[in-house]
Amino acid sequence: MNPSVTHCSKARITGSAPAQAQDDVLAVEEPLEIRVKGQSVAVTMRTPGHDEELATGFLVTEGIVTRPAQIAQIEYCQQGEAARLQNILNVFLTPDTPFDTARLQRNFYASSSCGICGKASIESIHGHFPPVTSSVQITREIVYSLPDKLRAAQNVFEQTGSLHAAGLFSRAGDLLVLREDVGRHNAVDKVIGYAARSNLLPLDEHILFVSGRTSFEIIQKALSAGIAVIAAVSGPSSLAVALAQESGQTLIGFLRGQTFNIYSGEERIV
Amino acid sequence: MNPSVTHCSKARITGSAPAQAQDDVLAVEEPLEIRVKGQSVAVTMRTPGHDEELATGFLVTEGIVTRPAQIAQIEYCQQGEAARLQNILNVFLTPDTPFDTARLQRNFYASSSCGICGKASIESIHGHFPPVTSSVQITREIVYSLPDKLRAAQNVFEQTGSLHAAGLFSRAGDLLVLREDVGRHNAVDKVIGYAARSNLLPLDEHILFVSGRTSFEIIQKALSAGIAVIAAVSGPSSLAVALAQESGQTLIGFLRGQTFNIYSGEERIV
Repeated sequence: MNPSVTHCSKARITGSAPAQAQDDVLAVEEPLEIRVKGQSVAVTMRTPGHDEELATGFLVTEGIVTRPAQIAQIEYCQQGEAARLQNILNVFLTPDTPFDTARLQRNFYASSSCGICGKASIESIHGHFPPVTSSVQITREIVYSLPDKLRAAQNVFEQTGSLHAAGLFSRAGDLLVLREDVGRHNAVDKVIGYAARSNLLPLDEHILFVSGRTSFEIIQKALSAGIAVIAAVSGPSSLAVALAQESGQTLIGFLRGQTFNIYSGEERIV
Repeated sequence: MNPSVTHCSKARITGSAPAQAQDDVLAVEEPLEIRVKGQSVAVTMRTPGHDEELATGFLVTEGIVTRPAQIAQIEYCQQGEAARLQNILNVFLTPDTPFDTARLQRNFYASSSCGICGKASIESIHGHFPPVTSSVQITREIVYSLPDKLRAAQNVFEQTGSLHAAGLFSRAGDLLVLREDVGRHNAVDKVIGYAARSNLLPLDEHILFVSGRTSFEIIQKALSAGIAVIAAVSGPSSLAVALAQESGQTLIGFLRGQTFNIYSGEERIV
């Protein structure tokens, strides 16, 4: 049974015809709590499946761990109802890993240095994750090929139309992993968590491709994994472009058919 | 000058033709901090514009205030850089309004009653916002008309393709307010904040229409304002459907042309 989808009944309405009762498939959304040293660090609404990757990716992209090897073990809470629900993950760090609870009190972008603004947000990010220096180059043909490859590998999305997808590709355009989730940031965390658990970090010669828009948060998560090339089906926000430019990342948007836009790092596309 | 958009240059790539340098328009994404009684209650990445509505809507939909009249005043922080950036909003409550800071420590859905799960999340929501009992009825023709009316009123989206839109309609299908934002939840908060500031709550005879998918969070925010009918261009998650069913709300998805699906509350569509 696929934990990412569930069935429901719906009424299908067309024109002025009588309503048709039909079965439908929905993307599952359920909360997941991530605990480190017994302390709750996040509750996220996610699509079940690949939860260990999600937790690993979250801890890496939020800078709570700096190396995947700092995670000793991840397991579902075994107490009471939680054991059955599998909605609480306990993360155990290696004994020498510093765990700064104050770090959890503020988001990166809630910097107090200049009140709060995009510029301060970028500086705060760079305090944790330096700009990339990758000299990887990608051909246009490989960029053009990404949407079809992702679509061919998608299964849940095709059924529900309700999921965000993120795919990690090699520089040669081979799909290494695809993850889908009701939360865009979760799909990216799962992909980066997969890469972290496979000892692939930093991803400085890989391409991250996402199904929707790109926000500041997506670019930040990519940067945390050293990703130098990000492509998306839809457009970026102003702060996504600013962070990509300041971080030396290549940012591609509106990738559809044989066309796309480059907002930053044009030199990597040849 | 529209604070919601900004200009940038991009390289337009088509087939194997030389790259074209072009101007482009981006949706602005900048952090906004919301403070109540001097305490930070949220930092959200939002599209500037209608910030007071966003703050009002956030406080209503998160249950921090129970009536809009509890908000005495909202103004930008006037200190230092923040005054220029307009990225910190101070909310002043009336003296008799209880402000429970512990309330901010946990999200609604982080209920400890059964570990953490969708069912507990719904129960927790209903502890704050009871199910709706509205007997409003909407014709199919009015439902079919919503996307075109929203699209006709959208301005920023058409330029950037990067924004979520939310519109509030009367039972007769008249658009009362449209708001756009890089964050889907922010667009809904702005719409509900507008309605709160216009003394329109509860919205038990209105329709909320959103441009994308529906998640648990969107249905929760609608419920907080008493909205009984929610329609969306794309599909709902499992927990969005469950919350709408348990709350007596009508939930419509995949509204495109002369077709849509009803996942809950079919009796209101006639």
